[in-house]
Amino acid sequence: MTAGERLRDVGEFGFLSRMLPTLPQGTEVALGPGDDAAVVDLGRTRVVACTDVLVEGSHFRRDWSGGREVGRKAVAVNLADIAAMGARTVALLAGVAAPGDLDASWLDALAQGMVEESAGVGASVVGGDLVAGDQVAVTVTAIGVLDGPLVTRAGARPGDTVAVCGRLGFAAAGLAVLQRGFRSPRALVDAHRCPHPPYAAGPAAAALGARAMIDVSDGLLADLGHVSDQSGVGVRVDPDRVPVSDQLEQMARGLGVDVRTWVFGGGEDHALVACFPPEQTMPENWTAIGTVVEGTGVDVAGWDSIPEGLTASAGFDHFAR
Amino acid sequence: MTAGERLRDVGEFGFLSRMLPTLPQGTEVALGPGDDAAVVDLGRTRVVACTDVLVEGSHFRRDWSGGREVGRKAVAVNLADIAAMGARTVALLAGVAAPGDLDASWLDALAQGMVEESAGVGASVVGGDLVAGDQVAVTVTAIGVLDGPLVTRAGARPGDTVAVCGRLGFAAAGLAVLQRGFRSPRALVDAHRCPHPPYAAGPAAAALGARAMIDVSDGLLADLGHVSDQSGVGVRVDPDRVPVSDQLEQMARGLGVDVRTWVFGGGEDHALVACFPPEQTMPENWTAIGTVVEGTGVDVAGWDSIPEGLTASAGFDHFAR
Repeated sequence: MTAGERLRDVGEFGFLSRMLPTLPQGTEVALGPGDDAAVVDLGRTRVVACTDVLVEGSHFRRDWSGGREVGRKAVAVNLADIAAMGARTVALLAGVAAPGDLDASWLDALAQGMVEESAGVGASVVGGDLVAGDQVAVTVTAIGVLDGPLVTRAGARPGDTVAVCGRLGFAAAGLAVLQRGFRSPRALVDAHRCPHPPYAAGPAAAALGARAMIDVSDGLLADLGHVSDQSGVGVRVDPDRVPVSDQLEQMARGLGVDVRTWVFGGGEDHALVACFPPEQTMPENWTAIGTVVEGTGVDVAGWDSIPEGLTASAGFDHFAR
Repeated sequence: MTAGERLRDVGEFGFLSRMLPTLPQGTEVALGPGDDAAVVDLGRTRVVACTDVLVEGSHFRRDWSGGREVGRKAVAVNLADIAAMGARTVALLAGVAAPGDLDASWLDALAQGMVEESAGVGASVVGGDLVAGDQVAVTVTAIGVLDGPLVTRAGARPGDTVAVCGRLGFAAAGLAVLQRGFRSPRALVDAHRCPHPPYAAGPAAAALGARAMIDVSDGLLADLGHVSDQSGVGVRVDPDRVPVSDQLEQMARGLGVDVRTWVFGGGEDHALVACFPPEQTMPENWTAIGTVVEGTGVDVAGWDSIPEGLTASAGFDHFAR
């Protein structure tokens, strides 16, 4: 790293792509940093773990989201990561920084939201820490267990079918609505406040033989790019097969937005994307949207150019100017 | 919680003591919140986990501590919690919030410090998250495994010997030195920058039959208070047996401080305190400092009153005014 270089010049992805490979990994580590979650092999149990940080201002605004919604979201983004490995979450821990003048009932609601979202998958909030900070920051760690096969981002093979389960673009649309000063439609705004990832679909896809999987946290194209990179393959997307809801289309038209920026670039719905062997019948609730091919990178069939606004949102970097 | 009540009015301990008991715990949770770490029983493996948050301004200052020292400390406080359960840490995850204008080399040093401290116990940093925030906040989660008996805060019995392993008061003295504008003596200042808890002593004490254990993070008397509360016993401390280094005595005299405020009230050295059955010979590096008795609370033999300054520091509350 060049002396005096600022974090925002290097960027989140730039810093991590340089730093993560330098972390030494012990013999008990089956999968280190760089996937949706890490895997530790404790001999008779494979434990899966991940951490996500939500910071006020970057990830939520307290005038847009209540404590309960932030609590649900902080847990949901982690549950989705564990599900994307084919695992189920058992326990969560929360590290919370908050200003002293925060209304204590907001924190009560935060805890309530965490418990609700965890209970939905049978997981428990088992511990945490609460400290003073200038802004609200919520760090949740999820600990899961692998009952079946592990699915990483690295197993896709040419010929595999690329499929998606869950919503795309709803959270991005909801954020766009809020940013324009509206509080409705409720379905979109709520999607920004708290995602509803298809948790159970992760282990189910693993059991059915999914060869690679990821949760859509950076945006569909950006996350397919991660699968492409880590599997050493190309991904060809058929945009006509990517589900776009009528509600999103209408809202995009109303706001003068290309709906593709939300659907292909919006990341916070935490849908699951998996690559299935070609002979695999699509499981229920999964939609085939493309094919794994020889080569590198992500190609969208029929797109001459990347829609305006999509480049910036695909692979959102918190430190980008 | 009364409507409109602020976090600083309720306090960290007040909020947690009210909130934690409301968290539902699933059948796989062997020990929920309220101890040094939680324990999840995965059938053939007992996983131990804890989270600690360090926030710039509250827990460290960047003009007093380098990134490497903050990284070591953020890991150390968690390793000590895992050790205090009798477990060994296998993996750690780090959630980091940082301002965009932070020098990227500071974050490199942070990662380096985390790796160094983890490597000392054979653990790996397996994952994390990096996001933008107004101040540096580092949340580390440690995941450990129990190879032997679990030791909680709740097992002490009247007649047990109370013993300590590790340093007391050094970090508090180092902080006092820094707060007065000095940068030496180095041993004290370094103790504030990064503790050196006796990690291996935790599982060793568990194997020898320790009935209760805690790491000293709030201060010796405050943490003995936690053992007293959770075991339903009283603790009688013989202050003449509590180790006080000559260096601390001299520094306290020089600064006009009662050294007992550091030794009995200072929390950040993360010594281990355990209660051993009366017939147990003290293991190497452990010093007997008192006895578990019938009753409640912590009593220091021969003290007519609590030394000035100790009340405030015992059980440090981040939100107290």
